[in-house]
Amino acid sequence: MKSEGGTHRAVTMRDVAQAAGVSVSTVSHVVNDTGARIGAEARERVRRAIEDLGYRPNAMAKNLVKGGSRFVGLVADAIASTPFAGQIIHGAQDEAWQHGYVLLVANTEGNEAAEASAISMMLEHKVRGVLYSTWYHRAVDLPAGLTEADTVLVNCFSADGSTPAVVPDERSGGREAARLLLEQGHRRIAFLNTRTPSPARDGRLEGYREALGAAGLPFDLDLVADVRPDQEGGYAAVDKVLAMRATGVFCHNDRVAMGLYDGLREHGLRVPDDLSVVGFDNQEVIAAHLRPTLSTVALPHYELGRRGVRVLLGLEAPEGAAPLAVNCPPVPRSSITRPSES
Amino acid sequence: MKSEGGTHRAVTMRDVAQAAGVSVSTVSHVVNDTGARIGAEARERVRRAIEDLGYRPNAMAKNLVKGGSRFVGLVADAIASTPFAGQIIHGAQDEAWQHGYVLLVANTEGNEAAEASAISMMLEHKVRGVLYSTWYHRAVDLPAGLTEADTVLVNCFSADGSTPAVVPDERSGGREAARLLLEQGHRRIAFLNTRTPSPARDGRLEGYREALGAAGLPFDLDLVADVRPDQEGGYAAVDKVLAMRATGVFCHNDRVAMGLYDGLREHGLRVPDDLSVVGFDNQEVIAAHLRPTLSTVALPHYELGRRGVRVLLGLEAPEGAAPLAVNCPPVPRSSITRPSES
Repeated sequence: MKSEGGTHRAVTMRDVAQAAGVSVSTVSHVVNDTGARIGAEARERVRRAIEDLGYRPNAMAKNLVKGGSRFVGLVADAIASTPFAGQIIHGAQDEAWQHGYVLLVANTEGNEAAEASAISMMLEHKVRGVLYSTWYHRAVDLPAGLTEADTVLVNCFSADGSTPAVVPDERSGGREAARLLLEQGHRRIAFLNTRTPSPARDGRLEGYREALGAAGLPFDLDLVADVRPDQEGGYAAVDKVLAMRATGVFCHNDRVAMGLYDGLREHGLRVPDDLSVVGFDNQEVIAAHLRPTLSTVALPHYELGRRGVRVLLGLEAPEGAAPLAVNCPPVPRSSITRPSES
Repeated sequence: MKSEGGTHRAVTMRDVAQAAGVSVSTVSHVVNDTGARIGAEARERVRRAIEDLGYRPNAMAKNLVKGGSRFVGLVADAIASTPFAGQIIHGAQDEAWQHGYVLLVANTEGNEAAEASAISMMLEHKVRGVLYSTWYHRAVDLPAGLTEADTVLVNCFSADGSTPAVVPDERSGGREAARLLLEQGHRRIAFLNTRTPSPARDGRLEGYREALGAAGLPFDLDLVADVRPDQEGGYAAVDKVLAMRATGVFCHNDRVAMGLYDGLREHGLRVPDDLSVVGFDNQEVIAAHLRPTLSTVALPHYELGRRGVRVLLGLEAPEGAAPLAVNCPPVPRSSITRPSES
């Protein structure tokens, strides 16, 4: 659905894609001459659509000549309540500045009215495009206003794949988490996953399975439990984990690991001697300061922001309709040891 | 010290203040007609300086008529590493939007080159003024570029009081923390303060003393210890705290309290039954999810950002050269109980 555009409505990459019958990333490849292999016919359709619609990929150049400004907008939904949005901003700003763009940041704290004003403010300032970001990885419906601007989704994606997106590679992250334990010789590895349906839940579980498979271990549903994804969920799962007789536990996030630590302590058990633990997120204030410090896998928020700007500026492009998936690197600390022989 | 201004250098409120021999906040009161009591003579000196220097408090109005934009800049030093900067941004944005201004946010992560580019970018965009903020409360030297723009310091202040500033009222916060314990009948209250010299260290100690005094209790230096202001510091202080035979402990921040919880647990002791604990900061991911949840005092970052914009726009002004001090409200949770009779 398009919103009603007035006479000032700029033609976007999405319009070109629709007219040419190709994906937005194909248009981006053609416009920015990335060297990606695009069939001659599709390339020609894109060129014709650009001409027909009067799309100007370098519209801001006019403004520049007049001494105007070059903006990239960033809409974030939880600057005040998580450290994650800040890392997306940091990465986006570094990359935007490097290319002479100023980042216009708007925080919505999930409020739709704030979001709508933020987007119209950005359109009024003739942004080169907008990064629309969420603090946790999920599917989103694109706000109506954003159909009028080139948009890249950051840490989120549209269900129909119609908008370029940059997301964490949850599956690779799940693999890395399991590998941290496998490498130390663990063979019976529990997974405290979140009970909230989400790409993180599915992807991390898939990665965990893959890593077990690659190590020649069977996938055992009895070793997987779904918990509330916070400290309370980890604390409440202690008895369940102990009953699994695992030597290592992969927790859906660092907060679950923090709660699990507390519960284990109350049972007189020690991390890692009695149980090795791996988290996810690398939320510094927790992971780097638990006792012992928590081995975990980092969510690449800085990199998501940076790559989002690169996609927006046409410096790189997702392949086809799938989001660009950014690796989640392992962060080993002190919560894993070799399992005792028993 | 003034930076060398070119022909484009705008006259600032600071220039007017200097020429008139009054404080910046006096100029702000006169310019914005706040109704504050300013002597007729000072008022006249300000008016004359405004005329002599050609100061235009409503310079942006010109831009507005031309359809240009109205910006307020916000420089933050740690968006990516703490949740605090995000709360300042949130408050500043809400207030700026309410008055038709767009917030231009720049993150420096403490990097001087990034700070200098951020400030010149803001000046190029003819910001109405700049909020210069730090993630922890401290004295700062104003960056050279900011002498060219109206500036309000947020969560920081200039040692000479020459720039309007909005800071947390650490003393009232210290009082509130001690009161949370006093109200439950505690009489022997330890204070694990930070060993880092800072306004937070001095102010919270003063507040703690005042609250004890108001309750008719003597100040006892043996009940105060300086620790590293994080989990490690709190954990390492357990023996010291137990030796103090206090029934309640006020921790410099929530992170210290989190470490103390761990240490107490390893001694087989329980919060709050064996020891009541109060934190400071209200860092949600910790305070709201420790076991038991942590009673604490909130740092008012949202309010600091909001009031910073209000001061910048002349909607309120600090009295004299002292920073505007914003209250730190208590946040009672479950880590305090009445001391057992013994």
